[in-house]
Amino acid sequence: MHADRPAVTVMGLGSMGSALAAVLLERGHETTVWNRSAHRAQSLVDRGARLAATPEEAITASPLTLVCVLDYEALHAVLDPVAGSLAGKVLVNLTSGSPEQAHKTAAWARSHAADYLDGAVMTTPPGVGNPEMMFLYSGPHTVFEAHRPTLASLGDPLHLGTDPGLASLYDAALLGLMWSTMTGWLHGTALVGAERTPATAFTPVAIRWLTAVAGFLTTYAPQVDAGRYPGEDATVDVQIAAIDHLIHAAAARGIDNALPELLKSAMERTKAAGHGSDSYASVIEVLKSPADDK
Amino acid sequence: MHADRPAVTVMGLGSMGSALAAVLLERGHETTVWNRSAHRAQSLVDRGARLAATPEEAITASPLTLVCVLDYEALHAVLDPVAGSLAGKVLVNLTSGSPEQAHKTAAWARSHAADYLDGAVMTTPPGVGNPEMMFLYSGPHTVFEAHRPTLASLGDPLHLGTDPGLASLYDAALLGLMWSTMTGWLHGTALVGAERTPATAFTPVAIRWLTAVAGFLTTYAPQVDAGRYPGEDATVDVQIAAIDHLIHAAAARGIDNALPELLKSAMERTKAAGHGSDSYASVIEVLKSPADDK
Repeated sequence: MHADRPAVTVMGLGSMGSALAAVLLERGHETTVWNRSAHRAQSLVDRGARLAATPEEAITASPLTLVCVLDYEALHAVLDPVAGSLAGKVLVNLTSGSPEQAHKTAAWARSHAADYLDGAVMTTPPGVGNPEMMFLYSGPHTVFEAHRPTLASLGDPLHLGTDPGLASLYDAALLGLMWSTMTGWLHGTALVGAERTPATAFTPVAIRWLTAVAGFLTTYAPQVDAGRYPGEDATVDVQIAAIDHLIHAAAARGIDNALPELLKSAMERTKAAGHGSDSYASVIEVLKSPADDK
Repeated sequence: MHADRPAVTVMGLGSMGSALAAVLLERGHETTVWNRSAHRAQSLVDRGARLAATPEEAITASPLTLVCVLDYEALHAVLDPVAGSLAGKVLVNLTSGSPEQAHKTAAWARSHAADYLDGAVMTTPPGVGNPEMMFLYSGPHTVFEAHRPTLASLGDPLHLGTDPGLASLYDAALLGLMWSTMTGWLHGTALVGAERTPATAFTPVAIRWLTAVAGFLTTYAPQVDAGRYPGEDATVDVQIAAIDHLIHAAAARGIDNALPELLKSAMERTKAAGHGSDSYASVIEVLKSPADDK
């Protein structure tokens, strides 16, 4: 243990909670763990973790408690009976949920005189401890700053704002980007795979291309904020013409086209809304106005 | 003009063709240009380009001709009448189209004793000349290698293989990845925007996250090639649980959910096919077997 590494408690030892505790131990934090099924703690205890016998003992062991359980129902089942022990403590909630659940839990923690940060882990368990991986937090700025060094043991801590729902909101938005990107990549991988190109040959090219795409996002972000989408580099009309090549090539190879058909439909609604000569960023206008409302 | 910079002809002076010619001039290539409407050539002529009066004059002016027109119909309208002048020349076709169109045009060029490379420009016109931007080529390896230095003036030239359809196939696959990624980003931007987070605040976080996502693709590519998808980091079941947070958060803010609903449906079909405990890469199994076929 290091004098400058405060004691931390980790509640919930699923694969993510176990990874958090393991990294805290590695970094020299005195680490107390608790899990509903105590046997999941054994390998952490072997590496020096202290096993708390009860949730109350876990919370009182450290000034800061990270909780990472299955869902908010599990969180309240564990913490509600021992809420009295939270007074003066800091609770950092890394359980996945909605912004509304984060708001409610922040108010609940406040009512028990606990400081509260809501968080989201933007990596898989093997990525915990990598300083390039983002950990998102929202809640009081002073609480975040006071505990930033401890949170920095886990990854790169970003404070999004005081609204406790922001970490969950960003988490949802970023996971949506991930699923979209991964599914687009799998569709492309299936397409080139139909011509015997291995995924391991296509993927390095796809990853380089994502770097170029990131440049487009940087160009488009101020357009979204301004609500004006000059189509100087490539227009929605040009993209609509191009997506037919994808749809035909994939159809000819027996690949599911639901995703490109949906993307084409969004582009066509964007064109119909008057954005044919605008950039792709103008597609956000139809996402903000669902088709069902029209 | 530099002795080591061969003469090049550019046919088609839309925004991309004009960018190609401008960069070739900058790099010191003797550059001949032709366009159906000659007035589009004026600013290039001002910078030293030679304007060909006819397509035949354009082709005979240089050993290598880049053609970048609206579509294959436009390409053949221009080149068919002057095919006799292609003998012994190299034609590099950067016109967007399907792999099948590339195959046919390669055979047509061969029948006129021309060497042929099919290509795809993986950047917007302002990105031409940036050595990090990918230019994809397919066709005979010897032809590619002989002209690699000239092609390297435009960007980073990658040779995908001898099958002339590969550049178009990759182009379609990569554009599909781009539209998926950009639409996922716009959906997430609309979601956080509903809570007054500017796109310019969200986007740098989204771009960092894409770097992490690229790491997942690198993990998943060999799984796709092996047809086995161990869900060690995150399973399809876990993703299905998580996407409901996105769908609820977006629905509560009046945002179109067609994209996440489609992604959830693909995940559920993947689970139904027995991949609930596998990684997200297993979604490719249902993309390769369209729902309509079942």
